[in-house]
Amino acid sequence: MSEPSEGGMKSGRLEAFTDGVVAIIITIMVLELKVPSDGTLAALSQSLPILLAYVLSFVNVGLYWNVHHHLMQATGRIDGKVLWANLFLLFWLSLAPFVIRWLDESHFAPMATAAYGVVMGLAAVGYQLTERAIIACNGQDSALARAIGSDMKGKVSLALYLIAVPAAFFARPVAFALYVAVLLLWLAPDRRIERALRD
Amino acid sequence: MSEPSEGGMKSGRLEAFTDGVVAIIITIMVLELKVPSDGTLAALSQSLPILLAYVLSFVNVGLYWNVHHHLMQATGRIDGKVLWANLFLLFWLSLAPFVIRWLDESHFAPMATAAYGVVMGLAAVGYQLTERAIIACNGQDSALARAIGSDMKGKVSLALYLIAVPAAFFARPVAFALYVAVLLLWLAPDRRIERALRD
Amino acid sequence: MSEPSEGGMKSGRLEAFTDGVVAIIITIMVLELKVPSDGTLAALSQSLPILLAYVLSFVNVGLYWNVHHHLMQATGRIDGKVLWANLFLLFWLSLAPFVIRWLDESHFAPMATAAYGVVMGLAAVGYQLTERAIIACNGQDSALARAIGSDMKGKVSLALYLIAVPAAFFARPVAFALYVAVLLLWLAPDRRIERALRD
Amino acid sequence: MSEPSEGGMKSGRLEAFTDGVVAIIITIMVLELKVPSDGTLAALSQSLPILLAYVLSFVNVGLYWNVHHHLMQATGRIDGKVLWANLFLLFWLSLAPFVIRWLDESHFAPMATAAYGVVMGLAAVGYQLTERAIIACNGQDSALARAIGSDMKGKVSLALYLIAVPAAFFARPVAFALYVAVLLLWLAPDRRIERALRD
Repeated sequence: MSEPSEGGMKSGRLEAFTDGVVAIIITIMVLELKVPSDGTLAALSQSLPILLAYVLSFVNVGLYWNVHHHLMQATGRIDGKVLWANLFLLFWLSLAPFVIRWLDESHFAPMATAAYGVVMGLAAVGYQLTERAIIACNGQDSALARAIGSDMKGKVSLALYLIAVPAAFFARPVAFALYVAVLLLWLAPDRRIERALRD
Repeated sequence: MSEPSEGGMKSGRLEAFTDGVVAIIITIMVLELKVPSDGTLAALSQSLPILLAYVLSFVNVGLYWNVHHHLMQATGRIDGKVLWANLFLLFWLSLAPFVIRWLDESHFAPMATAAYGVVMGLAAVGYQLTERAIIACNGQDSALARAIGSDMKGKVSLALYLIAVPAAFFARPVAFALYVAVLLLWLAPDRRIERALRD
Repeated sequence: MSEPSEGGMKSGRLEAFTDGVVAIIITIMVLELKVPSDGTLAALSQSLPILLAYVLSFVNVGLYWNVHHHLMQATGRIDGKVLWANLFLLFWLSLAPFVIRWLDESHFAPMATAAYGVVMGLAAVGYQLTERAIIACNGQDSALARAIGSDMKGKVSLALYLIAVPAAFFARPVAFALYVAVLLLWLAPDRRIERALRD
Repeated sequence: MSEPSEGGMKSGRLEAFTDGVVAIIITIMVLELKVPSDGTLAALSQSLPILLAYVLSFVNVGLYWNVHHHLMQATGRIDGKVLWANLFLLFWLSLAPFVIRWLDESHFAPMATAAYGVVMGLAAVGYQLTERAIIACNGQDSALARAIGSDMKGKVSLALYLIAVPAAFFARPVAFALYVAVLLLWLAPDRRIERALRD
């Protein structure tokens, strides 16, 4: 379990499995969307908020796939801890379709709005656990460890989710604005890893 | 991020992820189909229009997989822009099951008929964005850039969708005829890329 | 498009896509099953016929994956015709969850019983089209062409489906017995291909 | 069919297919969850038992993927018997979403609680059949055969399921405690295989 070649093979299958789960999550969310009640423009506009929530989640999950891609590309070896940290991340992402449906059926109730933040926040924790497990497996001096550094973006994201969840009960627009803010923070590709790899 | 070898690895994972999403879209559309209300031939014939819409969408999504296959086979390297353009394409394809269900439940209402064209038209835009991003990444002088050329088929498809969407409100058969016409336009394999690769 | 190396790469992606679609079909069929109405043994026994139909379909689709696996392992090259023949096969397999649901909701109506045979019979046609397209691409003298030979099993399967479909309207047990007979015919691995490969 | 290189290729596709099915199972379970009836904390707490059952199943299926991963990494060759044993395992895993839904709709009726044990117990049988088929294919003296040894964990798991299923009718908490106990037994990575590989 300690040979680099073996670790490499495992990393390949971990990526394939993660790709599979993320591909399914991103696709089945659409099954949760209720179609407009009839064929009028008014009915379509009533569906607009949930369609926007779908876009938000699609970009969010797509983003995790994207950063996961960058992370794995920089990884030499993985171990059992990485597998479980990754599964923890996938668990929370898998709840995204559930939260989307809840938002839709409860007409964006505060509880459901907060649940979106809890689920996405714990997915962010899962991503950081995966990152830490990979560093622990590859060594503190590895290129990856130096590339990730203090991971300021990850810490800021968690802080924003921590503010957004209680805000959902008092000021829902603030919560959604914070959810969008986290996305914008991550939409730029992770220059730290790219830069360190290039050097 | 600028080494060809790295780009190759990313291209492989992008293909696998796209295959996953497309495989799911093409398969879950069948979950949207309502079964005939009873076991008579009359009930089955009432289900015929939505079954034909399913065939239309299955071929449409299968076609995207097919041309994506040809495109990726000709690609040396990809970058972050390609990833996001590809995700934009997948987003619109992912709405295909949603539109199928809307067509079914609204009994082919004009608004739903138009939505089919909007979704497929924006998927076509996504495909062209992906094509452009790959050319930008591989260079205007690459074999791929020469192979794609002015992409007349892509431009004609967009024009047909632009006509079909308003036509859905005045003459639905015209809209569906145009949707079928776009399919027929693409059903031939993309000889341009094949020819350029062979030379 | 005519280089063996290119064909090999395409074959890999075709396998991956087919695996994805079949994996989804085989899994989402379970979404169509209605759970027993309550927690009694009587309720469970009412669910027994549809559970058996699920087993039948699971084995049927699993069988296609298995023979597809053997077929692809013997394939050197593929082309656009193989892609489309394979997509035709996947289309009919994708209707398996739809037919399962129809069988369930119509309480095994004759029409639904016949539809099972039509869908599985056309999947069998799709498999043979794929086989023929691969032979056309690899040459009549290839190891694969000799291995498949006259494909007696394939022809017998089609004949059995042709008998079973009308039988569904007069003698449903006969239809289901024939569906099971086709399965038993195929459950043995395809010795012809294995033998020819070994020589 | 007897060359190691061929067997290796088959192993790769078996892994990919298994990954696909497991990824789908683990993800569609979430489609079975009913959202809280409204946005209050009371409604959420009513959903708690089924959310815990989802966690249990997610970890259970994730565990199978994890041990499957370890098993395949130690495998040189596979044959038709391995394919079918693996399909038997996947069949029982595929019923996990069905059982989850039944637990939810029947409010954890004894029959549904027992069904969870039957499904997971037969999945455990399927895993052991796969293990045996791989040993039969690779030889009793292979590194894998020595690594698995008498498979005490597998036998203990089956014994626990055999106790849990009847317990479901008399003492449901005991049944669930035993289901959790099996999980805890397996949560540690399979040191036997890891150790034998390292020597």
